[in-house]
Amino acid sequence: MVNGKWKNGLSFTIHHLLFTIHLPMNFRLTLQYDGSEFHGWQIQDGQRTVQGELTRALELLEGRAVVVHGAGRTDAGVHAAAQVASVELQREMTPEKLRAAINGNLPRDVRVIEAEAASEDFHARYSARGKTYCYRIFNAPFQSPFWSRYALHEARNLNLELMQDAASLFLGEHDWTAFSAAQSDVKTRVRTVTKLEVGESWSERGQGSMIEIVACANGFLRYMVRSIAGTLLAVGRGEMNVEDITRAIECGDRELVGATAPAHGLTLMRVDYE
Amino acid sequence: MVNGKWKNGLSFTIHHLLFTIHLPMNFRLTLQYDGSEFHGWQIQDGQRTVQGELTRALELLEGRAVVVHGAGRTDAGVHAAAQVASVELQREMTPEKLRAAINGNLPRDVRVIEAEAASEDFHARYSARGKTYCYRIFNAPFQSPFWSRYALHEARNLNLELMQDAASLFLGEHDWTAFSAAQSDVKTRVRTVTKLEVGESWSERGQGSMIEIVACANGFLRYMVRSIAGTLLAVGRGEMNVEDITRAIECGDRELVGATAPAHGLTLMRVDYE
Repeated sequence: MVNGKWKNGLSFTIHHLLFTIHLPMNFRLTLQYDGSEFHGWQIQDGQRTVQGELTRALELLEGRAVVVHGAGRTDAGVHAAAQVASVELQREMTPEKLRAAINGNLPRDVRVIEAEAASEDFHARYSARGKTYCYRIFNAPFQSPFWSRYALHEARNLNLELMQDAASLFLGEHDWTAFSAAQSDVKTRVRTVTKLEVGESWSERGQGSMIEIVACANGFLRYMVRSIAGTLLAVGRGEMNVEDITRAIECGDRELVGATAPAHGLTLMRVDYE
Repeated sequence: MVNGKWKNGLSFTIHHLLFTIHLPMNFRLTLQYDGSEFHGWQIQDGQRTVQGELTRALELLEGRAVVVHGAGRTDAGVHAAAQVASVELQREMTPEKLRAAINGNLPRDVRVIEAEAASEDFHARYSARGKTYCYRIFNAPFQSPFWSRYALHEARNLNLELMQDAASLFLGEHDWTAFSAAQSDVKTRVRTVTKLEVGESWSERGQGSMIEIVACANGFLRYMVRSIAGTLLAVGRGEMNVEDITRAIECGDRELVGATAPAHGLTLMRVDYE
């Protein structure tokens, strides 16, 4: 307790002195979204984007501008089962409460499924060591009412074994120029694919099956998974073979590659950190 | 070959005489639909219904009015993985072609997944011997962007074991008055439940789990599965216990039963025939 006097003679007492220094806290957020009605991850003027919605929700909590970093920019229509974002916040909150507070401000096609306090130097993009994507193909004479938003429909019966054989060609370190968007400002197009598997996740009484192409790499170029999926689809249809793919990887020629598969079949499944 | 003469003296020859008698053929159709944007199965003026869309698609093929019978009337918002319908058609077509032709005329939230020629006396409703429904509850602090149309969201952590214990009370032949809609023109409310199981179909890194209530019976009353699901939900929350349920089944008192669970969590999984 401190007693004192003002210049005008009145006395005062300081009972308690409290300083609170708000240091920014770094958070790691894991997100799920149905990409159908988003114009992709990256914030863009006049477009509904995931980063845009998340930024808006966080700014409502913080009462000031915030910068949200994403592990990667998913394109329009691409879904995420576990996208990762990082953000520094001034407002003190437990991760549990933060998750609930953000979700309260988000539209229902995007959800924070986990919020965690992260170390100061954690950055969703620069700290990422690898990503896993899944491309789904519903292979049946009809499209499924339940999967039409999340899987490409292919009516022709695909040859799964040929697709599985071809998948192994995509393993390893390569320059993926042939399997990426022409316009791109990346320094290098070399990436290492650590896993590429084609499996049938379920089939329905001979009425249809779900084919999943699961791809892991230390990083992916724009359209890379969809381009690989389109190529494997061409293999499954008997339109391309092993030699075609080997040549495409070696020559880096986009003309040799299958058509880029549509966005809605693709889901970002996981981002790995050290 | 028949030769003849007209009255005016000109001769004519009948080379070939062809009669085609079109007997109506009975078909069995298996359907999937996302019930979210349907006002239920049953045809209603001015409403978008599954029976209405299917009838419209079939009438386009037949060029005349047709009557479609469904195995059961799913309510507004209820989905189907395998609803069954029967219809008599004059137009000759293989089942494969029929399926493709109907699907070509249907909106994308409903699909014929199988078409089969059926015996003359097959009737989707009267020939049915049993049905299986699944009620899904997504149990997590947040709703899932992918399941929000197909599963009820429950934020409170449900006690799965209590729900599983309570489920067995619903087995057997009972009068289900307490668990059905008050207004109903059925002759009897006695039905036999042959299976009632509560399981966790998957869980996600401690972030959430999917609880499935699977019910089989020789028939269900209106709101019966949703009423049982609502009661089991109350048990999982610790709001109801075994004695409450036993009393509700014995007394037939709707006041003793949990709230009817919302439609969107319910899916008709299967219809059984002899």
